Amino acid sequence: MSLNHAPHAEPADAPATFAAPTRAARRFAFELSLAMRHAGTRRVRVRGEWQGPAGAPVVVVAGGISAGRQVVGEPGSPGWWPAQVGPGRAIDTTRRRVLALDWLGADGSLDAPIDPADQADALAAVLDRLEVARLDAFVGASYGAMVGLQFAARHGARLRRLLAISGAHRPHPYASAWRALQRQVVALGRSEGNVSHALALARQWAMLSYRTPEEFARRFDAPAALEAGQVRTAAEDYLAHCGRRYAARWCSTAFLRLSESIDLQQVEPAAITVPTTVVAVAEDRLVPLSDLQALVEGLGGPARLRVLRSEFGHDAFLKEDAAVARLLRESLGDVA
Amino acid sequence: MSLNHAPHAEPADAPATFAAPTRAARRFAFELSLAMRHAGTRRVRVRGEWQGPAGAPVVVVAGGISAGRQVVGEPGSPGWWPAQVGPGRAIDTTRRRVLALDWLGADGSLDAPIDPADQADALAAVLDRLEVARLDAFVGASYGAMVGLQFAARHGARLRRLLAISGAHRPHPYASAWRALQRQVVALGRSEGNVSHALALARQWAMLSYRTPEEFARRFDAPAALEAGQVRTAAEDYLAHCGRRYAARWCSTAFLRLSESIDLQQVEPAAITVPTTVVAVAEDRLVPLSDLQALVEGLGGPARLRVLRSEFGHDAFLKEDAAVARLLRESLGDVA
Repeated sequence: MSLNHAPHAEPADAPATFAAPTRAARRFAFELSLAMRHAGTRRVRVRGEWQGPAGAPVVVVAGGISAGRQVVGEPGSPGWWPAQVGPGRAIDTTRRRVLALDWLGADGSLDAPIDPADQADALAAVLDRLEVARLDAFVGASYGAMVGLQFAARHGARLRRLLAISGAHRPHPYASAWRALQRQVVALGRSEGNVSHALALARQWAMLSYRTPEEFARRFDAPAALEAGQVRTAAEDYLAHCGRRYAARWCSTAFLRLSESIDLQQVEPAAITVPTTVVAVAEDRLVPLSDLQALVEGLGGPARLRVLRSEFGHDAFLKEDAAVARLLRESLGDVA
Repeated sequence: MSLNHAPHAEPADAPATFAAPTRAARRFAFELSLAMRHAGTRRVRVRGEWQGPAGAPVVVVAGGISAGRQVVGEPGSPGWWPAQVGPGRAIDTTRRRVLALDWLGADGSLDAPIDPADQADALAAVLDRLEVARLDAFVGASYGAMVGLQFAARHGARLRRLLAISGAHRPHPYASAWRALQRQVVALGRSEGNVSHALALARQWAMLSYRTPEEFARRFDAPAALEAGQVRTAAEDYLAHCGRRYAARWCSTAFLRLSESIDLQQVEPAAITVPTTVVAVAEDRLVPLSDLQALVEGLGGPARLRVLRSEFGHDAFLKEDAAVARLLRESLGDVA
C-alpha cells in the first residue's frame, strides 16, 4: 500500500507518520466516470473524509442511507458513529486510517437507479485516486453492509476482511414492500406539491422499521389523547420531530434513489471469499436473522455470525455502543 | 330470553322455531340516542343482520374495522367470515342465532371520536330493541375483540362467555404509531385533494401490519424490477390492488374514525368477570402475544389463552380456517 501520492484534496502538510489522535478529518472530492449498472456511464462526484494517520491500515466505514462521510463530525455536527470511531475507540483513529464517503445520490443530483454495486465501484475508483491498494477492513452497517458485500464480491483482492452489520445479500420482500410504500408517500406529496411534509412522513415510516415494538412499549406507554376532536397517540410528537428534522436536511430525490438502491441489492454470497463477520440483531424488523444466517451459510470464504439482542432492532449499531464496540474490537483486534 | 316481540325490521313471517339452515339473513336498522364517551349524546343509526333460527341461543360475531353486518353474505358478496359462520360451520346457523352489526362510523356519517365502549353500548341498545336479554356468546376478532372486551366489562350480566381473538384491552404503542401514520397519509391526500389515492395507500400500510414477513417472503420472493427508470418491488402490484379495492368501497372519514377508535381502547381486565377465551397469534405484529398474556393474567373471571402460529399474523382469523374452527368449536361446543 502506497500513500506517497496524496490525493489533490489532501493537505500538503499531512504527516507521513502516525499523528496526534485529535487531528481533524481531511476532506476530498473526486469527479469520476462511473459505469453504472442500470443508468449507463455517468460523471459523478464523490465526496469523502479521512480520519487518522497517513500510512496506517485503511478501514472503510459505511452506514445507512442517511449516513455519509462525516463519521465523527465536529462541534455542532456529531457525525453518525462517534461512539465507535475516534482516538481510543473500537475503530481507533490513532492506529487506523478511517475512510468514509458520501453515498452516490446523497446530494440529490443523481436521479437514476443506483445499484449498491455502483457504490462499491465508486469506492474502488476512489481508492485508485487515493492510491490505496488494499483495505485492511470494510466495516459496513445497514446499507453500508450491503455495499460492503458488493465490494467484497467485486473487488475482493482489495479487501482483507469484511464486517457486515445488519445488512444482507438481498432485501427481504417484506422490507422491500415497506420501503416501496414510503416512496409512494413521497410520490403522493410530490404530485401534490407538498414534498417536504410527505418526505417527513415517509421518514417516520422508516423510523418504525428501524426500531421495535419493545422500544415503543417502553417509551410511549400512554393512552391516546384527544386534540381538537382527533386522536393523537403517544409516539406521534417524537416521530413528527424525527420526520421534520430529516426533511430539513434531505431532498426527496436522494431519499427515493437511495431507498430504491436498497431494493436493488443482489449479491451471490458464494462470490465472496474474503473473511467475513456478519452481525445480526435478533429483533431487526428489516433484516431478519434468517436472511443473515442464509448469507453466512452461503459465503465462499471464512465466515462467522454474531447475533445481538436489542430493543433498538435495525438501529442497534447506532445505539448499543458497548456491544457493538466489543464486536468491532473482536473483528479488528488482530491488528495491533 | 324473549323473542316474542320481533323488531320492526324483522319480517312478520319469521318462523318461531328452528328453521331451514339456508334461510336468508334478516336485516334491520335502528335509530338510537347514544351517550358517546368523547362526542356527547348523538342520534346514530345502527344496521345489523340476523342469521339462523329465532329462539336459538344468540351469538354476536364481530370482526375488524372493515368487517360489518354481512358475515356470510350472498352471491357476489361473500361476507367476511363465511368459513366459520353458516349451516354446519363452527358457528352453526342451524343451531345458533348469529347477530352482526355494522360499526358505528362505518358509513362515514359520524365524524367524531368513537370509543370502542360506544360500540358496546350501541350493541346493548340494539339488544334491548331486539328483546335479547342475554347473549350466549360474543365472538370478536381484531377490533371486534376489543369491542367484545368492552361489552363484557360494561354489560357483563348480558353475556355468558366471550371469545376474543387477536384483540386486547389496550392498543400496543407501536401499533398505535403505525395507525397514526396511516391517518397522516390520508390527511396528506385530503389536504391535497387526492383522497382516494391516499386512502388506498393507507390501506396498503395497514395490510403490512396485518400480515407477516414470512408470508411476503413466500409470495414475493423475486428481485425488484426497473420500470421507466424506477424500482418496482415484487409485492407492489398486490398491495396496490388491495389498496384500490379498499378505497373503492370505503370513505376516508370511516377509515379515520375507526382507525382512531382502535387507539382509544382502554379496558380494565379485572372488570371482566365473564368466562373468557383469548386467542393470540404468535406472529401478530399488531397485537403481540405479550399483551394478550397480560390481558389473560388480569381478567377478573375464568380465563384461558390459546396461541396459534400462523404466517398470516393478525389476519389469521380470516385465513387459518381449520385452526380457527377448532377453537370456535372448543369454545362454543358445550352448547348442543
